[in-house]
Amino acid sequence: MTENQEHKHDHEHKHRKQIVNRLARIEGHLRATKEMTAAGRDCSEILLQIAAVQKALDNAAKLLLKDHLESCVVKAIHNGNEEQVLSALNKALDNYIR
Amino acid sequence: MTENQEHKHDHEHKHRKQIVNRLARIEGHLRATKEMTAAGRDCSEILLQIAAVQKALDNAAKLLLKDHLESCVVKAIHNGNEEQVLSALNKALDNYIR
Repeated sequence: MTENQEHKHDHEHKHRKQIVNRLARIEGHLRATKEMTAAGRDCSEILLQIAAVQKALDNAAKLLLKDHLESCVVKAIHNGNEEQVLSALNKALDNYIR
Repeated sequence: MTENQEHKHDHEHKHRKQIVNRLARIEGHLRATKEMTAAGRDCSEILLQIAAVQKALDNAAKLLLKDHLESCVVKAIHNGNEEQVLSALNKALDNYIR
């Protein structure tokens, strides 16, 4: 099992922990926004909070992508299996950048 | 207290409960994405999930905005205090639409 996981992802991303922490903070922010909505708070305020959550998600995605480029992609190219990694990355980017 | 709240927001939005439910689902989706990241899952997969969360937030914001237009804004204009409501809404839109 460990061997298999290592085969799938045998390196550590520099900012993984930082990205997890950011996503946890965004989750808390979204929970607070949900509670504001349930409490009947003003629509403009809720919209501002949703925009802030979106902005924070953009920044988390940007950090994730930079991390990915620095580790997975460079490594995959060294190992000669760039096609699969680049195809997955392109698909993710197509979905991400609207 | 209740009187003051009623003064601030004395009507019910048609889709408030639905928006709260959507935000709760998005919160769960984001939590799962955070756990995927912590588990070291593939970056492309995480990016796809973040994109899906963003898309769902866009749709929740759209529903919120439509609700707001149908209730608060129309009502505020009837009551003659449209300037304040429209200014808050414009600010929210400026922040929301990037």
